[in-house]
Amino acid sequence: MTELTLTTFAWVPEAPRGHVRDLRVRWALEEAELPYRIATVPRREEGGAYLDRQPFGQVPWLTDGEVSVFESGAILLHLGAYSEALLPSEPPRRAEVTSWLFAALNSVEPAALACALVRFSGDTGGSPGRERIEAYLEGRLGHMERVLAERDWLAGAFSVADIAMADVMRVVERFAGGLDAYPGCRDYIHRATARPAFVKAHGDQMAHFAAADRDREPGSPTVPAT
Amino acid sequence: MTELTLTTFAWVPEAPRGHVRDLRVRWALEEAELPYRIATVPRREEGGAYLDRQPFGQVPWLTDGEVSVFESGAILLHLGAYSEALLPSEPPRRAEVTSWLFAALNSVEPAALACALVRFSGDTGGSPGRERIEAYLEGRLGHMERVLAERDWLAGAFSVADIAMADVMRVVERFAGGLDAYPGCRDYIHRATARPAFVKAHGDQMAHFAAADRDREPGSPTVPAT
Repeated sequence: MTELTLTTFAWVPEAPRGHVRDLRVRWALEEAELPYRIATVPRREEGGAYLDRQPFGQVPWLTDGEVSVFESGAILLHLGAYSEALLPSEPPRRAEVTSWLFAALNSVEPAALACALVRFSGDTGGSPGRERIEAYLEGRLGHMERVLAERDWLAGAFSVADIAMADVMRVVERFAGGLDAYPGCRDYIHRATARPAFVKAHGDQMAHFAAADRDREPGSPTVPAT
Repeated sequence: MTELTLTTFAWVPEAPRGHVRDLRVRWALEEAELPYRIATVPRREEGGAYLDRQPFGQVPWLTDGEVSVFESGAILLHLGAYSEALLPSEPPRRAEVTSWLFAALNSVEPAALACALVRFSGDTGGSPGRERIEAYLEGRLGHMERVLAERDWLAGAFSVADIAMADVMRVVERFAGGLDAYPGCRDYIHRATARPAFVKAHGDQMAHFAAADRDREPGSPTVPAT
C-alpha cells in the first residue's frame, strides 16, 4: 500500500468543528488501523485553490498513490477495499453495506442538511417551505427508528455504512432539531460514538483545529473575531 | 450471471413518470446491454408491503441471485462490476467515477430535491428558508457549470456517474427552477438523454405506467381521479 494522505482544511471556525467530513475518513482509518497522514489547505475564503481536487470547494479528499478520491462516501468505499472491518467482501453482505451507505448519504443526510439550512436561515417556523422540509426529515427518521429498534448496526456488523449514518444522525442531533422523538436513533449514536476509533478520530480533528488557532498570529485578518 | 430483476412500482400518478428512479437502473442496464426483467409492487398507499427490501418505502431495488441491493447509487455500482462501459476497473479512473457518482447523489441531488420540495410546498418565495435553499442549489450548479464547460462527461468517458448526474440535472430542469442560467448543464442533459440507452429506458418506464393505467378497472378506489 502507498501512503494514504487525507486532506482537510487548515482551519475552520468553532461551529463546524467535530463535524468536518474528514471525521468520517479518520474514523474509518482508525477502525481499519490503517496508517495515514494529514495534509491541509486553507479554505477558499482564505486563498485555498483546490477545485481540481474537490470540485465543490469542500473537504476532504484522499490520495493513495496515483489514485485521488473525493466525496466522503467514495473515500469510505475506497478504504473498504483494504479492510473487512469496513466493507465485507462476501457479495450479499457487501451489497447490504453499500445499500445502507448510499441510504445514509442520499436518503437521510439530504433531509438533515436541508432542515439544518432552513433552521439556520432565520426562518423562525410556520413557512410552508420549512414545514415541508421538517416533514421530509421526520419521514426519514421514522423509518430509521423502526430499523434501529431491531438491530445494533445497519448491515449485520459495524461497517462504513454505520460511519456515514451515525455521523448524519449527529448532524440531526446538533443542528436539525434533535432526536428526542427517536430514542432508537439516539441510542445508535451513543453506540457508534463510544467506539475507540470514533473517540480517536474526533479527538484528533478537535486537536487539529485547536492547534491551528494557536498558530494564527494575533491581528491577522484571518483570525476569528472572538 | 443470475437473472437480474429490477423492482419498481406497479403504478404511479402522472407527475413523477419519467423520473421514478428505476429509470437510472434501466438506463445502466441498457448501456451495458444486460438482460433483466421488471417486477412490480403496489405503492404503500395501495397496500404494498416491502419495507424489508426498501426501508424507506421507495423504489427501486435489484435482485441478482442471492444479492439484493437498494438505493439507485448502490445499484449502479453493483451493475458497474459487470461492465467497463459503466465503471472502469483501472483504479484511478474507477476512483474518479465513484467520486462523481457520490457527488451527484450527495452534493447535487440533495440541493435539487430540497429546492423542489420547498417550491412545491406552496412557499411562494421571499421566506429566508426558501432563499437559503435556492442559494444552496445555485452554489452547487455554479460549480457544475464550471466543470461541464470543459468536458463532455464527468470522468473521461461516459459512466454511471453521468447516469446519476444527468438524471439529477433533469430534476433541476423540471422541478427546481430550470437551468436557463446554466447552459453547460443544459447541454449536458441533452448529450446524455440523446443516448439510445436513455431513450429506451425512458420509453420503457413511460410505457410501463401507461399500461398500468389501462389495466386499472374503472371505478376502482385506486384509479386516479382524472
